[in-house]
Amino acid sequence: MKKLRIGMLGTGFMARTHSNAYRRVNNFFNLAYEPELTAVCARNPATLKAFADQWGYASTETDWRKLVERDDIDVIDICLPNNLHAPVACAAAAAGKMVFTEKPLARETGEATAMCEAVEKAGVANMVWYNYRRVPAVTLAKQLVDEGRLGRIFHYRANFLQDWTISPDCPQGGNGTWRLDVATAGSGVTGDLLAHCIDTAIWINGPITAVTAMTETFIKERKNLDTGTVEKVGIDDACAFLARFKNGSLAIFESTRYARGHKALYTFEINGENASIAWDLHDLHRLQYFDHDDNSLIRGWHNIHVTDGDQPYMDKWWVPGLQIGYEHSFVHQAADAFEALAKGENPTPSFRDALETTKVCDAVLKSAATGQWVNL
Amino acid sequence: MKKLRIGMLGTGFMARTHSNAYRRVNNFFNLAYEPELTAVCARNPATLKAFADQWGYASTETDWRKLVERDDIDVIDICLPNNLHAPVACAAAAAGKMVFTEKPLARETGEATAMCEAVEKAGVANMVWYNYRRVPAVTLAKQLVDEGRLGRIFHYRANFLQDWTISPDCPQGGNGTWRLDVATAGSGVTGDLLAHCIDTAIWINGPITAVTAMTETFIKERKNLDTGTVEKVGIDDACAFLARFKNGSLAIFESTRYARGHKALYTFEINGENASIAWDLHDLHRLQYFDHDDNSLIRGWHNIHVTDGDQPYMDKWWVPGLQIGYEHSFVHQAADAFEALAKGENPTPSFRDALETTKVCDAVLKSAATGQWVNL
Amino acid sequence: MKKLRIGMLGTGFMARTHSNAYRRVNNFFNLAYEPELTAVCARNPATLKAFADQWGYASTETDWRKLVERDDIDVIDICLPNNLHAPVACAAAAAGKMVFTEKPLARETGEATAMCEAVEKAGVANMVWYNYRRVPAVTLAKQLVDEGRLGRIFHYRANFLQDWTISPDCPQGGNGTWRLDVATAGSGVTGDLLAHCIDTAIWINGPITAVTAMTETFIKERKNLDTGTVEKVGIDDACAFLARFKNGSLAIFESTRYARGHKALYTFEINGENASIAWDLHDLHRLQYFDHDDNSLIRGWHNIHVTDGDQPYMDKWWVPGLQIGYEHSFVHQAADAFEALAKGENPTPSFRDALETTKVCDAVLKSAATGQWVNL
Amino acid sequence: MKKLRIGMLGTGFMARTHSNAYRRVNNFFNLAYEPELTAVCARNPATLKAFADQWGYASTETDWRKLVERDDIDVIDICLPNNLHAPVACAAAAAGKMVFTEKPLARETGEATAMCEAVEKAGVANMVWYNYRRVPAVTLAKQLVDEGRLGRIFHYRANFLQDWTISPDCPQGGNGTWRLDVATAGSGVTGDLLAHCIDTAIWINGPITAVTAMTETFIKERKNLDTGTVEKVGIDDACAFLARFKNGSLAIFESTRYARGHKALYTFEINGENASIAWDLHDLHRLQYFDHDDNSLIRGWHNIHVTDGDQPYMDKWWVPGLQIGYEHSFVHQAADAFEALAKGENPTPSFRDALETTKVCDAVLKSAATGQWVNL
Repeated sequence: MKKLRIGMLGTGFMARTHSNAYRRVNNFFNLAYEPELTAVCARNPATLKAFADQWGYASTETDWRKLVERDDIDVIDICLPNNLHAPVACAAAAAGKMVFTEKPLARETGEATAMCEAVEKAGVANMVWYNYRRVPAVTLAKQLVDEGRLGRIFHYRANFLQDWTISPDCPQGGNGTWRLDVATAGSGVTGDLLAHCIDTAIWINGPITAVTAMTETFIKERKNLDTGTVEKVGIDDACAFLARFKNGSLAIFESTRYARGHKALYTFEINGENASIAWDLHDLHRLQYFDHDDNSLIRGWHNIHVTDGDQPYMDKWWVPGLQIGYEHSFVHQAADAFEALAKGENPTPSFRDALETTKVCDAVLKSAATGQWVNL
Repeated sequence: MKKLRIGMLGTGFMARTHSNAYRRVNNFFNLAYEPELTAVCARNPATLKAFADQWGYASTETDWRKLVERDDIDVIDICLPNNLHAPVACAAAAAGKMVFTEKPLARETGEATAMCEAVEKAGVANMVWYNYRRVPAVTLAKQLVDEGRLGRIFHYRANFLQDWTISPDCPQGGNGTWRLDVATAGSGVTGDLLAHCIDTAIWINGPITAVTAMTETFIKERKNLDTGTVEKVGIDDACAFLARFKNGSLAIFESTRYARGHKALYTFEINGENASIAWDLHDLHRLQYFDHDDNSLIRGWHNIHVTDGDQPYMDKWWVPGLQIGYEHSFVHQAADAFEALAKGENPTPSFRDALETTKVCDAVLKSAATGQWVNL
Repeated sequence: MKKLRIGMLGTGFMARTHSNAYRRVNNFFNLAYEPELTAVCARNPATLKAFADQWGYASTETDWRKLVERDDIDVIDICLPNNLHAPVACAAAAAGKMVFTEKPLARETGEATAMCEAVEKAGVANMVWYNYRRVPAVTLAKQLVDEGRLGRIFHYRANFLQDWTISPDCPQGGNGTWRLDVATAGSGVTGDLLAHCIDTAIWINGPITAVTAMTETFIKERKNLDTGTVEKVGIDDACAFLARFKNGSLAIFESTRYARGHKALYTFEINGENASIAWDLHDLHRLQYFDHDDNSLIRGWHNIHVTDGDQPYMDKWWVPGLQIGYEHSFVHQAADAFEALAKGENPTPSFRDALETTKVCDAVLKSAATGQWVNL
Repeated sequence: MKKLRIGMLGTGFMARTHSNAYRRVNNFFNLAYEPELTAVCARNPATLKAFADQWGYASTETDWRKLVERDDIDVIDICLPNNLHAPVACAAAAAGKMVFTEKPLARETGEATAMCEAVEKAGVANMVWYNYRRVPAVTLAKQLVDEGRLGRIFHYRANFLQDWTISPDCPQGGNGTWRLDVATAGSGVTGDLLAHCIDTAIWINGPITAVTAMTETFIKERKNLDTGTVEKVGIDDACAFLARFKNGSLAIFESTRYARGHKALYTFEINGENASIAWDLHDLHRLQYFDHDDNSLIRGWHNIHVTDGDQPYMDKWWVPGLQIGYEHSFVHQAADAFEALAKGENPTPSFRDALETTKVCDAVLKSAATGQWVNL
């Protein structure tokens, strides 16, 4: 088994999900590669040490430039705030490292394009962790659409609803709250949550050709923990947009962090001529499927418990009826990435794939600012 | 259209559901018969007058013996406490009237047998209002089983859960509370609620051959509103039993009025070799259906919204997607009864059909008293 | 009890729901008025006769102008295609009749405004049958919002999804298919389905101030049964729009007749600072409610079975746990209308109330045509 | 951190779940102990080697007696067929090892008692992997009951439904099919599935005092892959029983492997005077909770998504809304076990705790054989 020496950047939530994926993937998948937790990098020494101990990283760094230059690293995995994706990825590519990064690829299209060019010029493998593609029920949805079971697609609708920023006391900036800071994050729910919806939508339903959007910032000022002052909020708290796909279908997308009662409700539904599919993240192990070809007496939405061995990835886990969870989507993506590398292919979604999502996000924000439809 | 002159006994809850059925059935079904609300009978003159006005009964009586003897009545419909079913039905039969009665047929097998003999000797049409047979989803369940879709049946389970008698302040006897008075009702949940479960089960799955049961009375004493005194409670507050069917399947049944959170949750599920069916009264317009023959990728319980025109009774109502409710089961039973009469057949379930349910109830109560299996 | 002599126009689906409401309302509600089915009017004599017999109308007319002029009619109830709402309503008002009409009020704002002016000039009671306001769970939603339980509202989303026109063989025009004929209907899903969503939204959440929309006609040509020729389809098969409310909340609305698997799925959800509410028509007797004030350990969406006596209208029907259906919303609206009349008030929603919905529909269609936001 | 050297017995399904727990627990929990995968033992060398490689066991054994005697092992973890639990556990205890075993403790009470005596005499830590206690929603259910939120308990009902043995071609004996072989397994669904239900029930609701049961073997003969012959089936394919608890509540329990449509549907519901709780394994991250103290207008079952940081174990995983799966229950049990050891306490459930479940299983099977109630 070939070792793949990982250089992890960051010690936050996503660094945990990726580290977990690396630690588990070979217990469940038979692969040509085995990741090795070679080094982890962060600025805060105490946090860094604790994280390295918890996950078994062999060494630490406090300067990402050093990590990127180390000879004993094969893959740079970026779990940093969005503003750092571009500089780190470009430097890592220049240093000949494979680059994996958390989504979104970058804060906006300019940065994202530069990243694509950097990895392509360097000829290094590159991947963005749009993990929801690898939830078995979502992968199954893609498979059912690709098999033509839905026929012509008429409608796509997706939303991503949360409720964790409703309190005006929720700070922006400082202490891990960079997602509310527009300079760091690039945008609010659009880049953080809608990016997931858009990535899945393009993957399953093809290119988006036009959008019209609206955004809103419900809480206008928040305290910045870094500066200690109350500052204007620059991010979009909520965003909704209408879209048209190249295949002629219509779509609505919505995301907010002000939907009381929804912790992390990512949902999508696709309506085709013959069949429809629906999924949501709160019960991610289930897929809803309606088939008009069913005998009319017993026609109804199939509530599919996606835990059978012939359903995507599920032969690797337990037995029918026993569900897996959120973190497994990262294990699957790691497994698929290593299989791609073993075949000499680039993992998916690549930077170039993810660039399309960033372009849609930018079009959405532009439409919201101008009140006009924006073509892609 | 032939008139069918109804003599209604009682002005309580069930008298309302039956009266409503008579008032509505010809608006939705094309029938040879049309019921006419000729007379209603109750002891309390004020209540009686109000009821007659509300429902448009042409006349009233305060003595059921008089009603039974009237020449201008075709059908005696008994919506009285259980202890009066036998005397009224036998007198009505003797007077040559058709007899419809609310379930259960009687307090116990002796009374019920006498009633069967009375109507059969008199040669009059007879029917018991086990209305749940005519909920479209339940009728559809029966149809799917009869078509052989389930194959060999392995399991049947049913329960009827309520929570309205949990308070010790709930009285027994007096003011419409006869259901808690054992002398009047005959039993508690067994005759009131399990009777429904048993009727459906026999109808769909065939005869029950043996039972073992337990009962419990959680609140031992309650105030009797008639006598004003606190008296020992004689009914079963809860009853559960195991059963074997003639077709080799196993069953569990349970009923209680102490299941907090369930207002009137009648549920049943049937597991066959090829398919399974589940239904519950709280969403009575839906049927759950699992078919093992579905392609394994998209296999899951079908959540059937039973509102299509090819599903039982639904061509008579609105359009697909628009649900009907509880009361419609009585309209359907009235329609079916009138259709049977038009063909010269007896409506179903007949007294003789309903006698089987009473026998099972008696066996259940006997088993609970003795701790032994009781064969049927 | 005062008689209210009804002159019904039409014998189609909606004429059945209204006739049923009139026939039932006094059995369940204690009212000062009692409707009398005096006359029904339609062009086809055979259909007309059958309908009058089925529902017990005392007389028939084949010319609506004659009906409108009859002295023995108090209320003209319009269940005709949309293009006839304005001429009939205006003539009825001029003849001094109360006017009830099926929704939408009219094909567009000009007609609708004229209707408002006609009834107001004549001083006659007027009402539009936006029946979903009177589904108990919807009425309860309104009550919860009005009590302030949700706090500041952030989001409103609604859709109305059907799948009955997916087949290209579905005709437009002729034989009851006027809903696909733009000249008769005025629009497609916007006036037919979104009108319901908009009416409820304005009622619960206040005025809409701006919209941006897109529409699509998936099947471009259909056969017209009247003319026998294949003609261009003029209606919108699908429509989605973004909106802003005066109270600062954002909204998305969508309707289509191409959502395979949804027969008549009207849903809405409202997210407030403290609580959220969700409802759908396929299980209309339930309301979903999330309250952030619940203890965090046991916090979750309440699945409310709206059948208790203290919930809207439910003291009039059966007992807790026993659900009602679609048609009851019309009974409730009739009851409320008669109560309003008894108090000397105009029933709701009035023509003037419904005009607001028509204005939003027009703005939506205009936005879809121009690609611009339209202010209201 | 203290090392805890694990000697694993078996390489089947449960050996995977336990190995996974050992590999993951220290990444998520801060503990005084860290398991070390020292050795794994199985008879088939090829399977053994593959398993050791997959999970990183440092050494292998093919004779369990050797493993038990090794000096470098602290914990013997038994994932072997039921007939081997007693001999291995007794030998391990005699060798001074801590002993963890998969459930059920043993095939019957005699064996189980001997195991209890062996570990207690040796004074070694002991635990049975009734893992469902550590599903967060189940742990929360226990907590809510212990807090007194339900008040007096009236009803407990549980079932465990599967459908994997419906085919008569499913073999018994050989190739991992020992669960259908009565000599090896001790019983069918009673020891395999009902044992889970009983363990949870006793844990939450206290001792069971009496049972009456029925069992059935639907497929009477099956091929034994070891012997190659068709043999009589000795296990119970299905089992249902009624029970009474010491606290006065009534219960029904049912398990089968013939419930088409249910892969591994373990469910339980508890009805108390004030509140009720329901849970099922197919959506294990949810708990249903009904509280009669909720305001009557908005009273309904709370659908709790058990993923918040103040709910059991969930502060250790991801963020609210992101669910965990089946395998996490084993991680939790390992974490709790190590915490107990650190405090000098015995992990739970101990052998002695699990003995109570085996006694109930035996009473159930005895009742099924005799047709009599059996007291405990």
